[in-house]
Amino acid sequence: MDFNEIVESIRTFKGVTRKRSIADVREKLKDVYNVSGNVYLAFGDDAAAVDIGNNQLMLLATDGIWGALMDVNPWWAGYCSVLVNVNDIAAMGGRPMGMTNVLSSSNPEITAQIMDGIKEGVKKFGVPMVGGHTHPDTPYDALDVAISGIVDKDAVIPSCGAVNDDNVIVAIDLDGDVYPGTEINWDTTSDKSPSYVQNQINVMETIGKKHLVHAAKDISNPGIVGTLGMLLEASDMGAHIDLESIPRANDIDWISWFKMYPGSAFVLTAPEETTDETLSLLNKAHIDANCVGKVTSNHKLSMSYNNETKTVFDFSNEIIMGFSEDK
Amino acid sequence: MDFNEIVESIRTFKGVTRKRSIADVREKLKDVYNVSGNVYLAFGDDAAAVDIGNNQLMLLATDGIWGALMDVNPWWAGYCSVLVNVNDIAAMGGRPMGMTNVLSSSNPEITAQIMDGIKEGVKKFGVPMVGGHTHPDTPYDALDVAISGIVDKDAVIPSCGAVNDDNVIVAIDLDGDVYPGTEINWDTTSDKSPSYVQNQINVMETIGKKHLVHAAKDISNPGIVGTLGMLLEASDMGAHIDLESIPRANDIDWISWFKMYPGSAFVLTAPEETTDETLSLLNKAHIDANCVGKVTSNHKLSMSYNNETKTVFDFSNEIIMGFSEDK
Repeated sequence: MDFNEIVESIRTFKGVTRKRSIADVREKLKDVYNVSGNVYLAFGDDAAAVDIGNNQLMLLATDGIWGALMDVNPWWAGYCSVLVNVNDIAAMGGRPMGMTNVLSSSNPEITAQIMDGIKEGVKKFGVPMVGGHTHPDTPYDALDVAISGIVDKDAVIPSCGAVNDDNVIVAIDLDGDVYPGTEINWDTTSDKSPSYVQNQINVMETIGKKHLVHAAKDISNPGIVGTLGMLLEASDMGAHIDLESIPRANDIDWISWFKMYPGSAFVLTAPEETTDETLSLLNKAHIDANCVGKVTSNHKLSMSYNNETKTVFDFSNEIIMGFSEDK
Repeated sequence: MDFNEIVESIRTFKGVTRKRSIADVREKLKDVYNVSGNVYLAFGDDAAAVDIGNNQLMLLATDGIWGALMDVNPWWAGYCSVLVNVNDIAAMGGRPMGMTNVLSSSNPEITAQIMDGIKEGVKKFGVPMVGGHTHPDTPYDALDVAISGIVDKDAVIPSCGAVNDDNVIVAIDLDGDVYPGTEINWDTTSDKSPSYVQNQINVMETIGKKHLVHAAKDISNPGIVGTLGMLLEASDMGAHIDLESIPRANDIDWISWFKMYPGSAFVLTAPEETTDETLSLLNKAHIDANCVGKVTSNHKLSMSYNNETKTVFDFSNEIIMGFSEDK
């Protein structure tokens, strides 16, 4: 497989490029984003964090489900709306507490399938869907889910905390399959037990409480390398990684693999002294974890393969989200 | 004005009838709604409440903005997305902590107007928009906002708490105007100061902390009488009210008034001994409050006008949301 082709495929992947619109939203709200004075982390993280006293942060995240996914399989779209939101809280080291949804559809059959998928997600991940709002008269089908969680202030794991010379860890549950009808969903949860799946969510809370990592993000639409890019951008850092160290399912080629949205997967950065314990905890939770490189201060994400090195993203003259986290 | 016509107009108002689809959503999630064991209040309230320890509840609510409103005025839709969510938390006696949004539009001009409206709402209500998700490639324009807040467990005001013989209080800021281009938005906030508006939100937190009322709801799409109907349905109660006791702006007829979504307005039920203090607090915050009748145990909402009495809703054989709150 041609290395050039792999790198170009990551750079032009829609899951990466469509993130750029976040920059506009953030720019608009820049001068009011901390209007209440208690916002601790906001844009650029998987979930925002607001100080609620008692050394606790409230975590807030939201995700809409791509129209394309709704068209393919409404049940799966409902299920995934739970999965992606729960992982946003997990990536911060938080405990998901509840979700709400807005469901827009004028088709009762589609509505029923979406709700069945949500229900399965609620049972699997153990997080309640406590309310919602229905638009029964829209000319389109859409599903947005929001989630809130809590985390101790000293245990939160931000996206923006990567430190020069940290080890870059990529962790993915490899025991899965491409979900039927999709090309980019690496499903690792639908045939697993609730305890297996919830254990993978809880391991991130443990990692946060033990202060093992400086930064983490759950691997989502931008894929493995795109998500790492977002973490580095938020941290105002770069990294050098080795392609062949990245955990990969045997029967998937690299170009397809880098477009996958996996069911349980994180990128993390950890100092040398806590890297082994981090890898061990993740592996015990069946999230196959490996060190794939080092964080650098040169604002580039570069990757090596067969003794060749290429720059995937150069943050000094291009953007994914378009900003680093205010610290 | 014909009384029959007024009652029929309430009963057939789309703001009331479209609430029925909530029943389907709730039915679907009934056996998993408290999967985590710490859900304190859920469907049927303005916000759901989840126990997070420390005698605190996390409040979660979400609202989508009607497509019709988006078409009329994207700026106003963005502004209202903040207003309606903040009022959902206020109605529970809670303190709004942060919001997230999902914005779907492929039109950059509309996106910019929505974001400007959101920004004005954030400044006005003092609640940060801490994150969001943008779908820049949808064939429709839509905006969903979710909010989370906190409230002390013993100070929460549910929708479902109305007690037989409580006084029914309707409270509405009458100093406003029908928002241009809409027929049903009674705007009382856009030309007011942040402190005036935030004081109206905070008064509900005070009422909750002082344990002055048994139930409350913010008056939203179903209008004054429709919202009271939802409160009674959630409480498994009825009420008898007097039409002419309801606070009303002088130049608006009753049929139009009962379709209004006011900027700052609540229905509340209070025992006799705390009614005066409740009225006084609301009136001091410029929310014109009046006793309009009594809660009854007969599962009907009836209304009197000119010595005539009519049943508006009979909960024993019809539904608004279709369920009373599990207690």
